[in-house]
Amino acid sequence: MANAIAALSMDAVQRANSGHPGMPMGMADAATVLFSQFLKFDPKAPNWADRDRFILSAGHGSMLIYSLLHLTGYEAVTMDQIKNFRQLGSITAGHPEYGHVPGVETTTGPLGQGISNAVGFALAERHLNARYGDDLVNHHTYVIAGDGCLMEGVSQEAIGLAGHLGLNRLTVLWDDNNITIDGPVSLSSSTDQIARFKAANWKTIAVDGHDRDAVADALRQAKSSDKPTLIACKTTIGKGAPTKAGLNKAHGSPLGDEEIAGTRAARGWSHAPFEIPDHVYAEWAKPGKAGAEEHSKWAKRLATDANSADFTRAMSGELNAGWLEAFQSYKDSVATDMPAMATRASSGKALAPLTELLTDMISGSADLEGSNKTKTPVTSVEIQAGNYGGRYVNWGIREHGMAAAMNGMALHGGVIPYSGLFMVFMDYCRPSVRLAALMGIRTIYVATHDSIGVGEDGPTHQPVEHLASLRAIPNCYTYRPADALEVAECYEIALQNKTAPAVMALTRQGLPALRDDASRNMSERGGYVLRPGKGADDIVFLATGSEVHIAVEAADRLEKEDISARVVSIPCMDLFLEQDESYIRSVIGKDLPKIAVEAGIRQGWDGLIGREGGFVGMNGFGASAPGAELFKHFGITADAIVELAKTKLG
Amino acid sequence: MANAIAALSMDAVQRANSGHPGMPMGMADAATVLFSQFLKFDPKAPNWADRDRFILSAGHGSMLIYSLLHLTGYEAVTMDQIKNFRQLGSITAGHPEYGHVPGVETTTGPLGQGISNAVGFALAERHLNARYGDDLVNHHTYVIAGDGCLMEGVSQEAIGLAGHLGLNRLTVLWDDNNITIDGPVSLSSSTDQIARFKAANWKTIAVDGHDRDAVADALRQAKSSDKPTLIACKTTIGKGAPTKAGLNKAHGSPLGDEEIAGTRAARGWSHAPFEIPDHVYAEWAKPGKAGAEEHSKWAKRLATDANSADFTRAMSGELNAGWLEAFQSYKDSVATDMPAMATRASSGKALAPLTELLTDMISGSADLEGSNKTKTPVTSVEIQAGNYGGRYVNWGIREHGMAAAMNGMALHGGVIPYSGLFMVFMDYCRPSVRLAALMGIRTIYVATHDSIGVGEDGPTHQPVEHLASLRAIPNCYTYRPADALEVAECYEIALQNKTAPAVMALTRQGLPALRDDASRNMSERGGYVLRPGKGADDIVFLATGSEVHIAVEAADRLEKEDISARVVSIPCMDLFLEQDESYIRSVIGKDLPKIAVEAGIRQGWDGLIGREGGFVGMNGFGASAPGAELFKHFGITADAIVELAKTKLG
Repeated sequence: MANAIAALSMDAVQRANSGHPGMPMGMADAATVLFSQFLKFDPKAPNWADRDRFILSAGHGSMLIYSLLHLTGYEAVTMDQIKNFRQLGSITAGHPEYGHVPGVETTTGPLGQGISNAVGFALAERHLNARYGDDLVNHHTYVIAGDGCLMEGVSQEAIGLAGHLGLNRLTVLWDDNNITIDGPVSLSSSTDQIARFKAANWKTIAVDGHDRDAVADALRQAKSSDKPTLIACKTTIGKGAPTKAGLNKAHGSPLGDEEIAGTRAARGWSHAPFEIPDHVYAEWAKPGKAGAEEHSKWAKRLATDANSADFTRAMSGELNAGWLEAFQSYKDSVATDMPAMATRASSGKALAPLTELLTDMISGSADLEGSNKTKTPVTSVEIQAGNYGGRYVNWGIREHGMAAAMNGMALHGGVIPYSGLFMVFMDYCRPSVRLAALMGIRTIYVATHDSIGVGEDGPTHQPVEHLASLRAIPNCYTYRPADALEVAECYEIALQNKTAPAVMALTRQGLPALRDDASRNMSERGGYVLRPGKGADDIVFLATGSEVHIAVEAADRLEKEDISARVVSIPCMDLFLEQDESYIRSVIGKDLPKIAVEAGIRQGWDGLIGREGGFVGMNGFGASAPGAELFKHFGITADAIVELAKTKLG
Repeated sequence: MANAIAALSMDAVQRANSGHPGMPMGMADAATVLFSQFLKFDPKAPNWADRDRFILSAGHGSMLIYSLLHLTGYEAVTMDQIKNFRQLGSITAGHPEYGHVPGVETTTGPLGQGISNAVGFALAERHLNARYGDDLVNHHTYVIAGDGCLMEGVSQEAIGLAGHLGLNRLTVLWDDNNITIDGPVSLSSSTDQIARFKAANWKTIAVDGHDRDAVADALRQAKSSDKPTLIACKTTIGKGAPTKAGLNKAHGSPLGDEEIAGTRAARGWSHAPFEIPDHVYAEWAKPGKAGAEEHSKWAKRLATDANSADFTRAMSGELNAGWLEAFQSYKDSVATDMPAMATRASSGKALAPLTELLTDMISGSADLEGSNKTKTPVTSVEIQAGNYGGRYVNWGIREHGMAAAMNGMALHGGVIPYSGLFMVFMDYCRPSVRLAALMGIRTIYVATHDSIGVGEDGPTHQPVEHLASLRAIPNCYTYRPADALEVAECYEIALQNKTAPAVMALTRQGLPALRDDASRNMSERGGYVLRPGKGADDIVFLATGSEVHIAVEAADRLEKEDISARVVSIPCMDLFLEQDESYIRSVIGKDLPKIAVEAGIRQGWDGLIGREGGFVGMNGFGASAPGAELFKHFGITADAIVELAKTKLG
C-alpha cells in the first residue's frame, strides 16, 4: 500500500518535471498506517462534519495527500488529475489548495502554517464537543510536519498554545528525515525537538517511521493521551532511491528515469507508471468503507439529536436566523444616542449584541483584552484546558499563532473566530492573513490602535503603511469606520461575507458620532457621500476613520467662506473600488479637485484622487508623544485641509 | 542604586501619565548588577566599537534603560529628558529608539525583536573577532527579555540559531515575573522556558532576580559558558508598590500618587521625584569610569594594530576604497556580453565581484541557497559554531529570525548583511524589515522568485501584492531590475545607501538582456526612458523587472504599425517617486496615455498612470502551472499590451 503512494508520487513529479518526491516516499509508511488504521473519513462525503482532519503541514509533499485521496476513493482525485499534477486547471496544484480538492482541509506550503492551523481545528473540535456533545462532535486532528515547519517561529506559538490548552485530540507526525533543502538539518539546527515539545507540555514518542507496528502503537498512545502528542518518525527521505535516498537531492526535483527505475526495483514495485493493481486498490478501499459506516451511524444520531438543526446551520457557516433584524435595533439606538467614543470602544459595544445573536462567534485577544475590547458579556467565559465550552481565547503574545489558529477554526466550521491585536502587529500575522484571503474564509481581526493616534507608544506601535499594505492583499477587506454606526455597519458586512477575511481598523482615541440615521447600511458599497456640499461642489474630501471628522470640520469651515466641499467617507476602500465606475464617479465627482485625508501613507489613494489630487496624511513613520499633539505635528488637521483646499482652488 | 532606577521609572511614567513602570521596578536589581559589575561601556564614547551591547528586548520598560543611561553618565540623557519622557521632541521616546539615544543599540517595542537582534550582534562580534582578533573585538551581548518576547515565535528562531551557532557571548536575562498585560502568564502559557532553552542548546540558570549575589554569580557563569546562556530571574513586577506589585496592574499605566508614595516607603527611598542624591550618582559613575579605562587601553591597542585602518573603516560603515571603479569593469563586461539569464542568476553573478571588493558583506539564505544564489566564491566558507571567520550563514527555515539577526549585524557594525529568501516569504519577516527601515540601517534582502513566474509551486509561493506592500514601507527601497545590468546598478545604489534597507526582487525565470551601455547608472533615479519612441510619442509603457521585456516587445510591434510607444523601466519605484516632478514628468510624459505593466497588483501605479491609465498585471492570486503558461493565462503578454494600447488610442 505504501509503495503505491511512493510510486504515484515519484511518477507524477517526473511527469510534471517539477515537484517534491522525497517527502511522500519517506512518509508513505507512516501515512499508510494513519489512513488505513486510524483516520476516520468517508471518501464519498469529504465534508462530513465529524471526520478526522488530516493536515499536510509539509505542503510541498502534496503528492502524498493526492496519492492518498486517489487510493482511498475520493472521486474527484482521478488518475488523470494525478497525471496532470501541477498543470493549469488541474485540482492537483503544486501545494495542496483548500477548495480545489475534497479532502484537503487547508492550503499549505508556507511552512509552519499547517501545524498552526491544526491548533485551531483541534480547538474548534473541543469547543463544539462541549456545545453539541460526543454524539455529534468527536474527532481527531492529525498533522504531518517537516523540519521546516518546526523551524518556523509560528510553530512555537502553535505548540505553546496546544500544550497550554491541553488539546489532546491533536497529533503531529514529524517527518524526522534529517534533511532540508540545503542539506542535512545539522547545517542550521541543533534543537532537540522532542525536548522542545515536552517543554511545551506535549506527550512525545519517537519511532522508526518505516516500522508500521511502531507507528501504529504510537498513534494508539496518542489517542489515549491527555496532552497533544508529537510522534517523531525517523525516516529516510526518498526511501528506495538508489543514490538519492537520505539526501537533499531527493527533496525538490524529479528523481530522473534511472533513479526511478532503481527505486521500483528496491521497493519491489514492478508496475508501470500510474498503474495500480486491483488488489492494492481493494486494500486501500477498506478504510473509507469503514469510515462510511461510521458516517452512517453518525447521521442517524444527528437525525434524532435535539440540536440537529442548529449544528447543521453552524457547520454550514450560515448565521443565526433573525440576527440582522435584531441587530437593527442596536444600530437604531446608536443613531439615536450618537455616542462619542473610540471606535475600538464602539466595536466592543457592537460585539455585545452580535455575540449574543451570533452563537458561533468566538472571541479572543493577543494579550490585549483591555485595549482591544473583544470580550463581551456572553463570550466572557475563557477557554482553558479541560474547559472548552467558553467563547474567549487568551492567545497570549502570539499574533501569528492566533491568526493561524483562527484559520483552522474557520476551516473546521461551526465557529466564527474574531480576535484582537494592535493593528501595527498585523505584520506579525500577515502570512496567515494572506492564506485566509487565498482560501476565502471568514476570520475577523479586530485591529485597534490604527494610526499615530496611538500616541506615546511611538513609531514602533503606530501603523502608517498598514492600511495600504492590508488593502493590497487580494480578497481581504480592510474596514476603517468613522463612528459607532459605521462600526456596526462594517461588522454586518464582514459577518455576511463567508468567503473573505476582514480587518477592522479601529482608533485608540475618542471620536464624535457622525450620523443619526441607521435606516440603511451606508457602508455596504465601501464609500458614500457623508456630507454633501451645497449642490454645485467646489471640492471633494475623501477620508476614512478618525480623519473623516477632520474633513467634516474643514468642510464646515469652508462653507462659512462660501466654498462648497463634499465629504466622502470610505469605510472600506476595497469594497468601494469594486463598485461600478458610475457609482464611484457619482460619489467622488468626475472633474472636481480632490483631497484625501488619512493618517497613513498616500499609496492607494491615487486611484481615486489622481496624481494631481491633494493628500493630507503621513509620508513616513510616526513619533512618540500624546496622540493629539502628533496630529498637529504631522499636519493632519482641519487647518491643513482648508489651506490645501484653497491652494487647489487657486 | 536599584532604588534610583525604580524611583526614576515610576516618577517619569507618572509625570508623562503614560508608560510602563512595573518592569523597570522589577528588573532594577538585576540591571544594577549587570551595569555595575559586568557591562563594559564608556558613557563618554557610546559608540566605542568594543563595548558590550545591552539590548532591552522588553522595550516597553524603556524607563529602565533611560534611568541607567542617565545614572551612569550618558550626557545626552539629562534629567530634563527623563522628565520629558514620551513627549514630542524628547529623546526619551515611549519605546527605546535607535539613533535617538546614545546607548540604545536597537529600537525595541515589538516583542521578540530585541532578543532576535541580539543573535546578530553576537554573531557579528564573533565574526569580527575571527577577522580582527581579541585585541580589537572582544565583547559580550546582554539582553533583558520578558514573557512577551519569549512567546513571540521569532524568539524560537533566534534561540535555535544562537544555540546552533554556539554564541556563548550572548546572555539573556529573562524577567520571569509571571505577568502579562491581561494577567498571570498561566492564562496563556504553560511552557517550561528553562527546558525550552535547554532543548535549543543553551546553558540555563534560574535565580531570584532580587538576589544580587545570585544574579552576579549567574552572570559570571554565563561569561565562562561555551553556550549562550539564559538567566531566568524570578522577579516581582512593580516591586515595592503596596497594592499593585506582582500584578498586571503594575505593567502598563502610571501607579498613581498614593501607590508611588507607598513604594517610596517600602523601598526606603525618601527623595523627591527626580532627585538623586550625590552619593548615588557617585556609585553609579564608577562602572563608566572603569569602562573608560578599558576603552583607553583598547584605543592604544587599536593605534598599533596592523588592521587599524580597515577595522575603523568597516565599523564606520564606509565601503572599501576603489570598489565602485573596480565594479565598473564587471558592469562593462555585462554590457558587452548581454547575458540572457534570470535576475536571480545575474544577482549571483554580480555578488561574486561585489563580495570580493566589499569585504564586509556577509551572505546567507533561509535554506534556499541553490535558488537564491547568494553564496559566492569568497563567501563560500560557512559560519558554524566555533568557526566564525566564514562569510555565509545557513539561517535555516527561519526568515523572521534571519531578518532580525541581520538587523543586529548591521547595528553592530563592521558587516553588511545580505541574505536570500523566496520573495513571498518577505511577509514572514516583515516586522523586522519595518524596523530596519525605521532605524535606517543597511540590510539587503535577496528576494528571489518574484511573481507568477515562480510557476508550479502555485499561489502560496507567488508574490502578487508584495511589490505594493514592500513599497509601502517608508524608507525601504524595493528594487526590481529587468536585466543583469540593472541588477548590478541596483546593488550599487543599495550598497551606497547606509541608512535604508533594500529588497532585491528577482526572477526565477530567464530574461534577455536589454542594455549594452554601462557608462552611467541609469537606475539611480529609480526610473528612466529605456526605449524612446519615435519622437512625438503616442503612448508610454511603464514596467519593471520581467515585464519590461514584454513592454519592449509590445512597443516594437506597435512601431511596425506606426504607433510610437515609449518604454520606461522603473527598477525602483520608491526612488523614482522621490525625484523632482519635472524629472518624473520628463520620463513618463505629461499628457500621454499610459499603460503600466507589472506581474503584481495595480496598487501604487495610479500615482504614475492615474485612474484612467491602463494596467496589465494581476488582480488576484496566482495559480499552479508552468510560469510561461501563467503569464498567458493571466494576460500579461505583449498581445494584451498592444490591444490595450490600441483601445487607449481609440
